[in-house]
Amino acid sequence: MNREQVEAAARRFSQARVQFLLRTPLWKLPGAMFGAEGAQVWLKLEQFQAGGSFKARGMLNRLLANDIPASGVIVASGGNAGIATAVAAKALGVRCEVFVPTVSSPAKQAKLRELGAHLVVTGDAYADALEACLARQRETGALLTHAYDQPEVVAGAGTLAKEIEEDGGLPDSVLVSVGGGGLIAGIASWFEDRARVVALEPELAPTLHASRAAGEPVDVKVAGIAADSLGAKRIGAIAWDVTQRHVHDALLLPDAAIRDAQLWLWKTMKLAVEPAAALPVAALQTGLYKPRAGETVCLVICGANLDPATLS
Amino acid sequence: MNREQVEAAARRFSQARVQFLLRTPLWKLPGAMFGAEGAQVWLKLEQFQAGGSFKARGMLNRLLANDIPASGVIVASGGNAGIATAVAAKALGVRCEVFVPTVSSPAKQAKLRELGAHLVVTGDAYADALEACLARQRETGALLTHAYDQPEVVAGAGTLAKEIEEDGGLPDSVLVSVGGGGLIAGIASWFEDRARVVALEPELAPTLHASRAAGEPVDVKVAGIAADSLGAKRIGAIAWDVTQRHVHDALLLPDAAIRDAQLWLWKTMKLAVEPAAALPVAALQTGLYKPRAGETVCLVICGANLDPATLS
Ligand SMILES: Cc1ncc(COP(=O)(O)O)c(C=O)c1O
Ligand SMILES: Cc1ncc(COP(=O)(O)O)c(C=O)c1O
Repeated sequence: MNREQVEAAARRFSQARVQFLLRTPLWKLPGAMFGAEGAQVWLKLEQFQAGGSFKARGMLNRLLANDIPASGVIVASGGNAGIATAVAAKALGVRCEVFVPTVSSPAKQAKLRELGAHLVVTGDAYADALEACLARQRETGALLTHAYDQPEVVAGAGTLAKEIEEDGGLPDSVLVSVGGGGLIAGIASWFEDRARVVALEPELAPTLHASRAAGEPVDVKVAGIAADSLGAKRIGAIAWDVTQRHVHDALLLPDAAIRDAQLWLWKTMKLAVEPAAALPVAALQTGLYKPRAGETVCLVICGANLDPATLS
Repeated sequence: MNREQVEAAARRFSQARVQFLLRTPLWKLPGAMFGAEGAQVWLKLEQFQAGGSFKARGMLNRLLANDIPASGVIVASGGNAGIATAVAAKALGVRCEVFVPTVSSPAKQAKLRELGAHLVVTGDAYADALEACLARQRETGALLTHAYDQPEVVAGAGTLAKEIEEDGGLPDSVLVSVGGGGLIAGIASWFEDRARVVALEPELAPTLHASRAAGEPVDVKVAGIAADSLGAKRIGAIAWDVTQRHVHDALLLPDAAIRDAQLWLWKTMKLAVEPAAALPVAALQTGLYKPRAGETVCLVICGANLDPATLS
């Protein structure tokens, strides 16, 4: 995984016959607003991406880079990866099957149906839905999308970093939330060591942190407020490789700080975001990450798939 | 009211000893997303302004342009004008008294108190609170801020238009929601006839529209989904003058279209805005305003003071 693959994804996007990805705003603000006096804070407002998270970039790249059989695309995820796959499939006019466990919320199921996905609700847990999905894929030959551990998915996410650099220049540091690591792997592949890319995880879902401590990818227990999007049990193989080379900090945040930052983003900034998107703000506000004077810190605001009632 | 007064407001802001106003993002999008194929749509995301609406610009200009007595500033409004006055007063460290009627919501009262305002809850209707406010002002000599009909308030709002031009160049047209008319007057004072500035009002609060029909400012009955922010009973004198010169269209939207646009903005764009901010989107989506091919239309997204639960 490298810069060239991110360039290739960006080229694919610009040459695609349908244009539904958005160039999301980069907003430059005084660091003092975030408790980082003397720094400059950039917000990459990627929660405004089609489908409500950065995930559409990776899914579109996966779909554009491969021949799609008549059976279409297939994915196991009721969360942002499922939504993003459905959004990309709809835009390209291809069939999309999404497998979710019975515990997935009716609101999410309704959203996926609205996007035209063929929904299969099966199994008690995610693992069961995934197993059914893989069996079905072997049967139909549909193109499988993975939430974070496919090269096209990682490279697609990396286009977000390319936009940051094009629109704002090179930041000194970039704070990124980590689940399975596709997002940070894409971003770090773009910046390499030209910016300090910092990994942020909930204490209750320390996927990368635990693997670093063990010296190799290990399974972790995941729970807490952001488990919905940051709750991958194991860091992806691609992400492990890229972060070992280009990411030097993997920091942990308590759920209370994440929730405080999420509520602050709404009350003070009028940004309605999901918990996963609040980690970079929490890292500044708690002082977990302390920029030096004059540093430009880019916060990746990665998603807004939430029930807005949880903000009131 | 003219361009020079807007320039003066912008100068005051840049020279102020406190910097709390934000330069809000201008986001360029394909018109097709809004049902305006072939046009380009710019969103001025002014709902992210300090205090959650454009109003902070006008209030800060009013406070910076005048000597503030020890008794501070005073305003009658539980809505965005009250919040913006409290935000500006807090930033400058001056005393702020806000008068609201007993019907104003506990959530708004709590917000004003949080901002450090001295809250006076009095009278059954807005008119009673205003009367008490004016009596108190005569007693204390505090600086009165008006929601839309003071030159500094109008000129402050106009700085939003100056930013649009600086950041994006000159749009062909600008769609603006109208209550008492301070916002559109500021914007039209800046653009004069260099861009087509279009006034949008709810059918149930047709303040400018009714005055145009009558040939002079008249009182109207106001009601409906956006009455909270667009429910001024009579167009301001300054706004009447400016719009007579520079605004050629005053269009009306039904509440249902405003609500649809508000819900669409959340579901599809992840922008959580109040009804008043949805009128420009509704005007495009309903075809009430039809841009020509190649036209650049700027939509002023003016506020986000809402209970997010109303979006779920
Ligand atoms: C909003 C949001 N942020 C961050 C992540 C984490 O991304 P990754 O799994 O690629 O690390 C996800 C994953 O679903 C997400 O939905
Ligand atoms: C969010 C919002 N939009 C628009 C307006 C209308 O502004 P004006 O009264 O200056 O026309 C207001 C007024 O309060 C407002 O709060």
